[in-house]
Amino acid sequence: LQLPGPLELALRFGKSGLMADRVTAVAVRRNVRHMARRFIAGEKVHEVIQAIGRLRKRRMACTIDLLGEAVTSESQADEYAQHYLELIDSLSIAATRWKTDELIDQGQDGPLPRSNVSLKLSSLDSHFDPIDPERSRRVVAARLKPILRRGRERGAFVNIDMEQFAFKDLTLHIFKSILEEDEFRDFTGVGIVIQAYLKDSEADLHELLDWTRRRGHPITVRLVKGAYWDVETVMASQRGWPCPVFTQKWRTDAAFERLVAIMLENRQWLRPAIASHNVRSLASVLALAESQGLSVQEFEIQMLFGMGDPLKTALVERGIRLRIYTPFGPLLPGMGYLIRRLLENTSNDSFLRQSFSEHTPLEELLRDPDEARPLSPLLGAATILDPWEDQPMEPFAQEPLIDFSLAPNREAMQSELGEVSENLCGAHYPLIIGGQEIETARSLESVDPSRFSFLIGKVACASTDHARQAVEAAREAWGRWRSTSVQERAALLKGLAEQMRRRRLELAAWAVLEAGKPWREADGDVCEAIDFCEFYAREMQRLDQRPRQRHVPGEENVLLYEPRGVAAIIAPWNFPLAIMTGMTVAALVTGNCVVVKPAEQSSVMGAKFFEMLGEAGIPDGVANFLPGIGEEVGARLVSDPGVDLIAFTGSREVGLGIIETAARTSPGQRNVKHVIA
Amino acid sequence: LQLPGPLELALRFGKSGLMADRVTAVAVRRNVRHMARRFIAGEKVHEVIQAIGRLRKRRMACTIDLLGEAVTSESQADEYAQHYLELIDSLSIAATRWKTDELIDQGQDGPLPRSNVSLKLSSLDSHFDPIDPERSRRVVAARLKPILRRGRERGAFVNIDMEQFAFKDLTLHIFKSILEEDEFRDFTGVGIVIQAYLKDSEADLHELLDWTRRRGHPITVRLVKGAYWDVETVMASQRGWPCPVFTQKWRTDAAFERLVAIMLENRQWLRPAIASHNVRSLASVLALAESQGLSVQEFEIQMLFGMGDPLKTALVERGIRLRIYTPFGPLLPGMGYLIRRLLENTSNDSFLRQSFSEHTPLEELLRDPDEARPLSPLLGAATILDPWEDQPMEPFAQEPLIDFSLAPNREAMQSELGEVSENLCGAHYPLIIGGQEIETARSLESVDPSRFSFLIGKVACASTDHARQAVEAAREAWGRWRSTSVQERAALLKGLAEQMRRRRLELAAWAVLEAGKPWREADGDVCEAIDFCEFYAREMQRLDQRPRQRHVPGEENVLLYEPRGVAAIIAPWNFPLAIMTGMTVAALVTGNCVVVKPAEQSSVMGAKFFEMLGEAGIPDGVANFLPGIGEEVGARLVSDPGVDLIAFTGSREVGLGIIETAARTSPGQRNVKHVIA
Repeated sequence: LQLPGPLELALRFGKSGLMADRVTAVAVRRNVRHMARRFIAGEKVHEVIQAIGRLRKRRMACTIDLLGEAVTSESQADEYAQHYLELIDSLSIAATRWKTDELIDQGQDGPLPRSNVSLKLSSLDSHFDPIDPERSRRVVAARLKPILRRGRERGAFVNIDMEQFAFKDLTLHIFKSILEEDEFRDFTGVGIVIQAYLKDSEADLHELLDWTRRRGHPITVRLVKGAYWDVETVMASQRGWPCPVFTQKWRTDAAFERLVAIMLENRQWLRPAIASHNVRSLASVLALAESQGLSVQEFEIQMLFGMGDPLKTALVERGIRLRIYTPFGPLLPGMGYLIRRLLENTSNDSFLRQSFSEHTPLEELLRDPDEARPLSPLLGAATILDPWEDQPMEPFAQEPLIDFSLAPNREAMQSELGEVSENLCGAHYPLIIGGQEIETARSLESVDPSRFSFLIGKVACASTDHARQAVEAAREAWGRWRSTSVQERAALLKGLAEQMRRRRLELAAWAVLEAGKPWREADGDVCEAIDFCEFYAREMQRLDQRPRQRHVPGEENVLLYEPRGVAAIIAPWNFPLAIMTGMTVAALVTGNCVVVKPAEQSSVMGAKFFEMLGEAGIPDGVANFLPGIGEEVGARLVSDPGVDLIAFTGSREVGLGIIETAARTSPGQRNVKHVIA
Repeated sequence: LQLPGPLELALRFGKSGLMADRVTAVAVRRNVRHMARRFIAGEKVHEVIQAIGRLRKRRMACTIDLLGEAVTSESQADEYAQHYLELIDSLSIAATRWKTDELIDQGQDGPLPRSNVSLKLSSLDSHFDPIDPERSRRVVAARLKPILRRGRERGAFVNIDMEQFAFKDLTLHIFKSILEEDEFRDFTGVGIVIQAYLKDSEADLHELLDWTRRRGHPITVRLVKGAYWDVETVMASQRGWPCPVFTQKWRTDAAFERLVAIMLENRQWLRPAIASHNVRSLASVLALAESQGLSVQEFEIQMLFGMGDPLKTALVERGIRLRIYTPFGPLLPGMGYLIRRLLENTSNDSFLRQSFSEHTPLEELLRDPDEARPLSPLLGAATILDPWEDQPMEPFAQEPLIDFSLAPNREAMQSELGEVSENLCGAHYPLIIGGQEIETARSLESVDPSRFSFLIGKVACASTDHARQAVEAAREAWGRWRSTSVQERAALLKGLAEQMRRRRLELAAWAVLEAGKPWREADGDVCEAIDFCEFYAREMQRLDQRPRQRHVPGEENVLLYEPRGVAAIIAPWNFPLAIMTGMTVAALVTGNCVVVKPAEQSSVMGAKFFEMLGEAGIPDGVANFLPGIGEEVGARLVSDPGVDLIAFTGSREVGLGIIETAARTSPGQRNVKHVIA
């Protein structure tokens, strides 16, 4: 399931015997260049125009893609849009010199545009993101409309490509919303893509058909199998989300044939452009077209530049209109495209690989995909292994992130933000020492970092004497806590994780308001906090269940883990819940008592964390809440002889200072302090 | 193979349902007391005299053992000898009141001594040790002779018990040498023990027979199976020495019957006292005696107090003379005795356990042991497991210690000590920095700590500037060393171990001379140094072969180990080779370069270590030899910004000082220093 790294890339593709232990950077570069020359028509416009000329001589049409994909700045997006305008101009000028070829220039409704470009909407917005669909629509429209206008002016065709599943609904939404506008309502020189591997594809195609009928003017639909299968399956699996693509290749092939039938039937609305390199799939298109009495002008086949060339020739010889998807542009932005081609060419399920490199019998290659044969193992059923022992254990799975590309999730988050900011902000939170709430003369005011006037909460501000009391309370509670069972301590962490799940959106809202986190980061912070609880609970159980023994005759050797005592937890603001949680629960589950000093900037989150620890049933004194000024209580904790362990995340300067101070051992001190910085 | 700890002891012996998870100290004490009352006749002399009275009423004779075994001071040994003198007196006085019983008081040559004591020679010398047999003979003789004299005066019988195999030859030697003296040559009221489980037993019995004939006066021989089986097998296995006992019970039983035949045949020289609780063994004695026409006065059976009482009654009823081995005395010194009884009663091979607790058929219990049935698994074939993974790996085995109870080993060591002190001491050793030998103005004089006038060697004394140079040389060499393969580094350690094996006695001799180590400790120091090389080499290979991976979809996670850089090794004098080696090779095999500062008191050993590192092929600069004054070069190494890792063994004060100093990070320092103190 892993994406290949650059080395593996070179090894997989390498044809020159480079399977040695170390592939040098030179060899990697050579192999990537070799691959690029095969799949990419050139770096410059004049090179791609020459390539088009060569293809037209072989009676093949083109659609031109400027490699780019996700851009990372608005100026890049501007540049990309500008390149498309220029590409359309250049192609249109060049097209005047091309000799007409009936086979490729004549469609069902008359002459076809000779210039034909394909583009990705993610290249037109540096923040293309379904989390805020209207913003992306607005930004993309501002750059796409000039391109559509230029296309119409120049008689060029503009196809909107499809990318990963997360962008699909947004892409369809933008496409439709622009083409519904009066200016573009009657424009037919446009196309969109349906990916047969998506479980949604049939529903999407029907909806597109309905929409086209409502619009009253046809569009072109390119039907593909889908080029992001690896990413889709891996990402869904990583995030614990439902897998959007068919995980068995035969299902995609079967869906493809069903979609072809729908498209051929509705060819007056959805002009069919059917893309595949699979002989069985293509043969089924031709057979279906023939059985329905279609003329060769009523559909076209599309194939990729550099792939399946013998098949291309065969199609042209049969008088089928063939269009070659022809990418060009600089190598670096083209890497993603190259990797998709590589994965296709090396996939075990690839028709090309099976037909050329493997010894699959012809009958099997050409078999009806609906004769279901589950060739690939089902995903999602993989046993989760103990990471260090390769042994099955109670499975740990990361807490799934919220998918903010879904509208109901966005609405729930918005509503929670309103609830927290309107009804919960501004409260006061005391210290907690030995289970007692303690008010202080001073307090810390935690404000929204994006509007300082908005008070998130007022939090008590501990003195150095409070720090001393907290260490004493922790030391006193340690007598009991160190002898609780691992089971009990692990159960506390699991209870805490449950509290966090229950208050998940609320905690994310606090992180947005108090730490200025973007939504996904805020949600990720809560998930990571949950993960720390679940993971450390299991780790401690693992360490406890397998005392490490060494078998020597006449000796009894057992390696046991003992808690150290009192841990000072000094937490940062930038992952306000996750890092504080991780450092705290690691100390707790291993049998230490803790004094927690949250960052001044996120002290309210610290108070929320202690609310949940209380709900989860932590005994008095085992965890003590000590918000305050780092230079005062933080420094006191570090030098307190009663502290055995310091966990700190923060700046290098402060960390090195802690290491230095903690290394000074006071007379009578119980342990050499252990610093995790 | 493990000896039971106190908890297991209580659990095994517990009859009152105490098999709970935690057995309290109270329950342990109760069970031990219960066991003690069963197997020990009392704590005081008057109690054991009452017990004798009760046994004589049941027509059973006694031999009395004062519990004690290994004593730990000369005053304890004096006390123990004094107790035996008093015991003989008390028994003799009490004996005047005992009614004569022909069955137990009449032997083949007339009336038998009514007082009968058994004692262990290890109780008569706080340093009873075969490593110096003449010393032990002298000390034991000084305490044993008065006891023998008192026994002869009082008409009491004195039996010398046998303990573990390591003491056997020394015990026989002392026994014979005293009884050869004119004063004791005609004394027949003495006995010794032959243990049938020893592979040597038949040879020993024949030698004893020859010796008795030479002496011209009979002795008594008690034939036992042997009570130290667990310790003998475990210790031999732990030390890698040949196992002195039969590992299969049936072989012991068969040897026992052969030894009985020899003893009955030679009963005029070796008066037979045959000890067993095994019905088959005892029946074979009676059958053999009957077939040879022996009278019941020509041999006796011995059994232990508290064991096999129905069998005892049956023997008395058959008119057989039976003597009960009756221990008494305080509980704590009696623990070893109790544990031996416990092991006998719970051993799977025990006749008593098989006949009472198990369902072994009678035919099998009484079968001729020579009808060989290998019931117990063979020892020594156990697979050595990877200690942390329970996976088989290239087996690590501790280097076997030298058995100094064997005379040839003692002689070889003595000769090596002569060679080293006469021909090798007094040489001069330079620093080694970056592979260069460097002479210094000052030097350290290493002398024998037991005679300061004897110079072991003169060793160069580094300045702080040399320390700086050494760190620089190590840092320079690190560039290559860090990228050597684990295989190469492990091979270096294995080569070093080979050097140490080759020079094993010489290194032990240096440790004796330079560090004042006793022989066994000196040998142990060399063995431990070899073990460090072998163990760390394997550990590094294990860590290298299994990069720790965590399987998460879409992620590549690998935990790798990287060397830190330059390690300063600051070694102590008290394990002059082992600790220096361990700290050094751990750093080397993990890819660090080292600067080694040996203790001033054992700098010559440091030079020997570097000779061997050189022979093993260490590259220049990877290990640098920096003998010098701790307060100068040690302190400089600790604060040098070029040092990444400090390994120190020594005093708490110095260790805490190192931790504190090393925690101060200089500007531009590459790492936070890691201290292993």
